[in-house]
Amino acid sequence: MTIERITSAQNQLIRHIRKLQTSRSLRRDCREFVCEGWKLLDEALKWYPKIKVLVYSEDTQCPILPEGIRVVQVPEALMQTLSGMKTPQGVVFTCELPLEERISIHPGMLLLDRIQDPGNLGTILRTADAFGIPVLLTNGCADPYSEKTLRASMGAVLRTRPMAIPLEQFLELCLQQGIPIAATALTDQAVDLRELDLRQYITVIGSEGQGICSELLEKSDKQVIIPMQSRCESLNAAIAASIVMWEMK
Amino acid sequence: MTIERITSAQNQLIRHIRKLQTSRSLRRDCREFVCEGWKLLDEALKWYPKIKVLVYSEDTQCPILPEGIRVVQVPEALMQTLSGMKTPQGVVFTCELPLEERISIHPGMLLLDRIQDPGNLGTILRTADAFGIPVLLTNGCADPYSEKTLRASMGAVLRTRPMAIPLEQFLELCLQQGIPIAATALTDQAVDLRELDLRQYITVIGSEGQGICSELLEKSDKQVIIPMQSRCESLNAAIAASIVMWEMK
Repeated sequence: MTIERITSAQNQLIRHIRKLQTSRSLRRDCREFVCEGWKLLDEALKWYPKIKVLVYSEDTQCPILPEGIRVVQVPEALMQTLSGMKTPQGVVFTCELPLEERISIHPGMLLLDRIQDPGNLGTILRTADAFGIPVLLTNGCADPYSEKTLRASMGAVLRTRPMAIPLEQFLELCLQQGIPIAATALTDQAVDLRELDLRQYITVIGSEGQGICSELLEKSDKQVIIPMQSRCESLNAAIAASIVMWEMK
Repeated sequence: MTIERITSAQNQLIRHIRKLQTSRSLRRDCREFVCEGWKLLDEALKWYPKIKVLVYSEDTQCPILPEGIRVVQVPEALMQTLSGMKTPQGVVFTCELPLEERISIHPGMLLLDRIQDPGNLGTILRTADAFGIPVLLTNGCADPYSEKTLRASMGAVLRTRPMAIPLEQFLELCLQQGIPIAATALTDQAVDLRELDLRQYITVIGSEGQGICSELLEKSDKQVIIPMQSRCESLNAAIAASIVMWEMK
């Protein structure tokens, strides 16, 4: 294994990684995203097909890696400029974004509609992986390949590689295949979610502020509610999703 | 209603509020805590017995308030120094900490052991309020009256006023009253939580990093687990708590 050494913050690779950390469009254009920390590295080595570049700090040991990864050692101070964490762990690496495969849908899936908080999104993906529930995202969701979401997912993003689907395509596939949609909603028509067998449906969770978009709500076959005390307006989106997934399980 | 006007960041009241925001020990010593935003003000006016001081920004309207609250108008720039939010809402107020009442325990409660993330703690308290589950905290938990927890709880802290209990006292009360303890734990002895009627127990949720402290684990009558795929090490503490509470309900 060849190890490069980089010491300049102006180095092209270092600048590239820093840009990838903040720019979703660059991640999409370069088909590359950044992960940080040993926990995510473990998960990536176990589950993820393609690590491209690994940067580690000179005060830590270089991990054992398969062939084909560009390995770079940097001074501790330079590593800190690459870290999004309060306590940098000494390792940052990039992976290739998964190839966009043809999306297939089936009953028992969860569709996340415009979940914009990266922490909530990561937590939902972590829970979905724990319960074995496949997840689709609408295009309005936060980027699952952002560092915050990757971290909150505790590696579940690397294991499950969630995909976004355009809303029209999703609705068309549901119609073609006769898969009913259950929308979680705080409306008068909504029934207690325990009254349905959610494994027969694709269940939609909406964003915390705005709920489910009107088009999805109109096209849904059932509206379901998690019963709660009337003085509470709603549950956190990740909590609502976890209870839905627990009931699906 | 008399409205004071303060324009100096060095004013004693302004400095006092800023200190209350960051110091848990000052909150405890003064028996006073700080809330921010119109949503929390609504909840406090509806549910909380004692608002002490309200500070609002000159670019917003003074809300309608009951007697006995010190009301202060400040310039927008000064309000910004009091705000912990990205988009300050123009209102900050302080409340008296609830009196420490004699704590009573009963089956069907949730005990949180050293939940240290304020966001997780607030989310758990929000869910507990939605499901009508009473919650106790061990002394190692984050402060429920910190701004982050208050905000994440969406006002549930003001509605339910959670209390901390010393561990020894908790264990003694359980023993005296013959209330069994169920501990969520990833151990070999743990049984699927659906096998127990958790309404007969007090169920303990531990901190994400460290789980439940050894003393509580030893004294627990049952250990329960939320079944999940083996490749996932754990659930987020707020997610685990929400599923436990859903099952208790």
